[in-house]
Order: sequence, then C-alpha cells, then structure tokens
Amino acid sequence: MTYTFKIEHTRIPKQKPATDQLGFGKIFTDHMFILDYTEGQGWHDGRIVPYQPILLDPSAMVFHYGQTVFEGMKAYITVNGEVSLFRPERNFARLNASNARLCIPTIDEELALEALKQLVKLDRDWIPTAENTSLYIRPFIIATEPYLGVSPSKKYQFIIIMSPVGSYYAEGINPVKILVEKQYVRAVAGGTGEAKTGGNYASSLKAQEVAAKEGYAQTLWLDGRENEYVEEVGSMNIFFKINGTVVTPALNGSILPGITRDSMLQVLRKHNIPVQERRISITEIIEAHKQGTLEESFGTGTAAVISPIGQLKFEGTEYVINNGEIGEVAQLLYDTLTGIQYGKLEDVYSWTVIVK
Amino acid sequence: MTYTFKIEHTRIPKQKPATDQLGFGKIFTDHMFILDYTEGQGWHDGRIVPYQPILLDPSAMVFHYGQTVFEGMKAYITVNGEVSLFRPERNFARLNASNARLCIPTIDEELALEALKQLVKLDRDWIPTAENTSLYIRPFIIATEPYLGVSPSKKYQFIIIMSPVGSYYAEGINPVKILVEKQYVRAVAGGTGEAKTGGNYASSLKAQEVAAKEGYAQTLWLDGRENEYVEEVGSMNIFFKINGTVVTPALNGSILPGITRDSMLQVLRKHNIPVQERRISITEIIEAHKQGTLEESFGTGTAAVISPIGQLKFEGTEYVINNGEIGEVAQLLYDTLTGIQYGKLEDVYSWTVIVK
Ligand SMILES: Cc1ncc(COP(=O)(O)O)c(C=O)c1O
Ligand SMILES: Cc1ncc(COP(=O)(O)O)c(C=O)c1O
Repeated sequence: MTYTFKIEHTRIPKQKPATDQLGFGKIFTDHMFILDYTEGQGWHDGRIVPYQPILLDPSAMVFHYGQTVFEGMKAYITVNGEVSLFRPERNFARLNASNARLCIPTIDEELALEALKQLVKLDRDWIPTAENTSLYIRPFIIATEPYLGVSPSKKYQFIIIMSPVGSYYAEGINPVKILVEKQYVRAVAGGTGEAKTGGNYASSLKAQEVAAKEGYAQTLWLDGRENEYVEEVGSMNIFFKINGTVVTPALNGSILPGITRDSMLQVLRKHNIPVQERRISITEIIEAHKQGTLEESFGTGTAAVISPIGQLKFEGTEYVINNGEIGEVAQLLYDTLTGIQYGKLEDVYSWTVIVK
Repeated sequence: MTYTFKIEHTRIPKQKPATDQLGFGKIFTDHMFILDYTEGQGWHDGRIVPYQPILLDPSAMVFHYGQTVFEGMKAYITVNGEVSLFRPERNFARLNASNARLCIPTIDEELALEALKQLVKLDRDWIPTAENTSLYIRPFIIATEPYLGVSPSKKYQFIIIMSPVGSYYAEGINPVKILVEKQYVRAVAGGTGEAKTGGNYASSLKAQEVAAKEGYAQTLWLDGRENEYVEEVGSMNIFFKINGTVVTPALNGSILPGITRDSMLQVLRKHNIPVQERRISITEIIEAHKQGTLEESFGTGTAAVISPIGQLKFEGTEYVINNGEIGEVAQLLYDTLTGIQYGKLEDVYSWTVIVK
C-alpha cells in the first residue's frame, strides 16, 4: 500500500544548530507530520506542514485528563551516508499498545512508518553527522476534544516532531550515578506503567528533583506494591551483571518494554552471555555488592543508549560499581548497538530500516 | 491587598444555552482568566480575555509528560439572587498541594480567588438559575516550556474556564450503579493519587470504559498495593453506612482529599451521627451486605454533589443497597449541602463566599 500525504513546505527554513549546541530536545526541524482523528471518521488528513504551534481549545482533554501517549526513536546518518532508523516498527507497535491502555484509537502502523520516512527524508539535512549525534523523533498523540467530562476523547491529533540531538546525559558514555527511590512510586501493577503516557513521567518529577539536588542523574524505581523489587530508571531499563550472569527485571506490566532492552537481550544471547529476565529485589543487589559479585550495572534506552551506572545510592549508602568505570558487557553492548545504528557493523539482526 | 487584572471584553458574546441543553462541561462562558509563569520572573500578567484557543509549541511539556494540575468548583445563584462560591479557598489550597507534588510553582491563592471573583462577576449572566444547575469552574495549570527533556517545566499557564452545568450523572439524584475494580489500579501510595493531576484520570479511563459497557456509572477503586481496600470513585469520595455508623476511607495519600467529603464529615459530626475515617476493606463491605448491615452508600464531590449508590458489583455479583433507593443520611447531606450552596439554609459553617 502507498500512502500519499499533502506536503506544505516551509518558506522560512530555520538555521541548523552547530554540533556543540545540540543538547537534547530543545531544537526542532523545519517540518512536522499531523494526522487527525474524529469519531465516526477515523484517522484522516495526514499531512506534513512547517513546524508550527498547535491551537487548542482550553477545555481540550489533554490539558485536564492526561490522555496522551508518545514514542521516542532516532534516525542516524550511517558511515555510508545513508539515513537509518532503528526498529521503527516496534515503536509504532508499542504506541498502539499504549493507545489500548489509554483508550485511544489504534493508528495504522504502516501509515505511521511511511509518514515518518517521508518526514525524515524532507528534513534529512537536519540529521547531525558528528559522532554520537542523531535525530530524535517524537511521535505523540493528544486528546483534543473540548469537553470536561472524564471519558475517552472523541478527537485526537497524532503528531511527529523531530529534534537533532547530542547525548542525553551530560556524562555522555561516562558512568552515571543513580538514586534508588523508596518513598515515591512511579507505577504499580494494574496502572499505566507499561504504557508510554505522560502521567508516568509527571509522577516521576518529584523524585527526580530530589535525586538531581543530591547530584544523581536519575532515579531507580522500585515496585509500587512492596517498594522492594527493581523496576527501571527514569528513561531507561536497567541491567545488572551478578557473578557472570546478566539480569534485568522481567516485563511485569508496570515497566516500559524497552526496545533497546529487547535488542540487548538478543545481543547477549547471541554472545552466549548468561541472561535472566526475572524479579530482582534491591536487597539482592545490595547483598551482591557486599559480596563483591555485583560486577556491572547499566541502563538501556533510545535516548540514553547504553549508560553505565557507576554508583547506586540506597537508603543513604553509596555503592560504587566496577570502580565507577564502564564494564565489559556494557562496552560490548554499546559498541554493538551504536555499531549497527551507525552502519559500522553488519546488522545481523535486521534491525535497521534505511530511508531511501 | 488588591489585585488588578487587565480585562479584555469579548466583542461577540455567545448565546447562552437553554436549561435543557446544559449537560456537563461542553459549553463555556464568554471569558477566561490567564496567568503566565516564567522561571526567574514568577507568575505574571494576570488577565481576563475572551474565551479563546491557546497556542502552544508541539514540544510543550504538557503534551508529553503530563505536568498538569486542576481544580473543580462551582458558583451558584442563591435563592436571594446572589452569586455564591463554596469554600473556594480550599480549592486553591488543594491546587497548591497538587502543585507541590507535580513540581509546579506555587500560585498566590489570594490572587487566584480574586481573579476568579472578577471572572465570575464578568460572566455572571452565564450562571444558570434553574434548580440544581450551577456554573462549573475549572482552574488548571499546564507546563508550556518547549522541551522534550523529562524535568519540571520552566514555563506554565494558569487558566480558569467556566461552564454552565446541569447534573453530572444522567441519573441526577437517583442512585447510581458502581463497579468495583479489581484489575486496574488508579493510584498507589507514593504515587500521585492525592494530587488532582491528569495522569490519575488518564489511568482511570480503561476501567471506566469497561464499567460503562456493563451499564455502570463509575468505577470504585481499590488500593494499588493489595487490591483490597476501598479508595474512591472516579470523581467522588465514597461513604458507607454500616450498622448506624458512617465510614469513609481515611486520607491515606492515594485518594483525593475531597472538599465535599470534608464538609460532609462536619455535617455528620454536627448531627451527632457516628463517623469513622479509616481503612475499609471490600471484604468488610461485602460481609456487611450479607449480614444486612450495609445500610447506605453514597459518593460526594463537587460535580456529583451527593450521589447515592444503589448497587455495587464486585467479582461478578451485584449487591443492591437500600433497595436501590436514596438513604436517610444521603438525603440529609444532600439537603444540607445544596441548601447551603443555594442559600436556602443558614450557612452555620461559614462555607459560602458571596461574590459582590
Ligand atoms: C520509562 C522508560 N523506560 C525505558 C525506556 C527505554 O525504552 P527504549 O529502549 O524503547 O527507548 C524509556 C525510554 O524510552 C523510558 O521512558
Ligand atoms: C478522584 C476524585 N475524588 C474525589 C473528588 C471529590 O472532590 P471534591 O469534593 O473536592 O469535589 C473528585 C472530584 O473533584 C475527584 O476527581
């Protein structure tokens, strides 16, 4: 099937940022994609337009009841000068999973991918080329019906915006420090934790503020029922290497099923590194640290890539991991992931989608 | 202190709805109040303008990370033709409590109340006068900084919009049917349950959809840790009368501290009706029903007023309460509350604020 979208070109192209001004998510490209939903009519009027503000009634549901979902993905310029996307079909599948939880109508995943490709092609010159830079892509859906009743909206907009980015953490690939959170909870079984929806991030702000004040990059969340089992970090899934085995929390319904997580599990298995997806208590992690068997920890995510964790703080005590240095497994995964993303390694997993 | 706001009057006043077209939250008055926040400058530029759409960058944080809070309150035309607000200072205090949880800067509660009074005065003719109608008031704050990083926004808008309303439930004062939810969770201790923020409502949509399909007006939420203790209903706090004593869940951090709830507790105590605020398990409620001691149940809320619950459904079984009729206590509270709100009863509690 081919999809054709109306394209309105910008008349005033913006200046592209220098590499050292990139940062994360502050600068946006020249165009955006919009698709409308109206009850009875379905999704309609897909179009690419100049990047521009959106006009909404102040009673639009998104302002009141948080009925939103989003995705985060990236486009890369490969060493061959091609434009590459990393498993984009998984992002649109996850967007639809989030939609289901939030009572938002399903989008056509093929249409979304096609729209994305056309948008990326149009704004190709916005993809930065310096090492470790990329074009961050943010597809999102907002409830736009002007109505204050608490019920699913009858109108939505699906929008894709794009931002040229450098690294997510100021630390770059250097190990980050993470604070284990005991008081605040991000998500609980039966809640919206496995959906990528605004409320999960809103509820994380308070703990992150506390962590930031203490000099920590992010929060490690524990489960909402017992405040004991490790869930995930603010914007990454978490892995530990304990006594030679790599363990990561199982997908239990309250953590985001990360696409980087899934990909890295495949890499680990291909390298015959023992892997377990299971419930992990914070007590077990602290015990392992005490016994000297906590060999590595790192986070995985589209924005954070592979981010070694050099220190955990839990209940006032600081636990340094691997001398605060990047570990062997983290390095292997980082090299494999970025190698495939930037076309330096052969993509034996068929993850990349080249935008022609 | 006196506050003066710039007022821009509408040039095209809208037509006011007939009483039978009121519904809830679909029609808005001629004006709205806006106050901006900019980091470094604080809240500034309070103004009343014609009701109009808002223009936001597609990367505005509210669209992505759900950093929003809101309130719900009402203005009434009393039997003496005065304009009356019900404990409005409590709503702005609660808004600030929500702000604290969501990392949103505190507003000046006095300024907010003064702004509201001026807005209500300007749109006074929009307050409907028929029995049980009122002007629903929706103050809300949205994060407007154009930035995709997960951190508190550096820009906000505080907005007040108003909508003339009839009754919230199609049932009016007639008892509603409520489905007890075991699978989905609205909020958990340590989460955002006691704040009035969009995410709590977004996460409730799925269960409400299921409930609505089965013919139930709303969902009764259980706690997120054990799925056993009664929390609250979609937009009301819940009360039970068991064996002569009125019980309601204690404020435990995961339910909204309802202003109607607090007011009704005062009325019950003044009438020497035994009251308990405590943890209540759903097992206890079902047991009481079986033993014939569950005498009444009702919800309390600004939108829902006092709403008798005629039936609970739990794990497939329907439990009819008080023959599906409004009970004595619910009737007393309804008469007292609406009596004070509409100026039919003396306000011995000093709850009403007359807008002069
Ligand atoms: C809460 C959360 N967990 C995990 C991740 C990692 O997911 P992915 O690897 O798909 O980017 C993200 C970021 O997208 C996230 O926001
Ligand atoms: C979740 C929730 N609980 C309870 C209430 C009742 O609170 P109040 O009596 O202050 O309106 C509301 C409505 O405002 C609500 O949204």
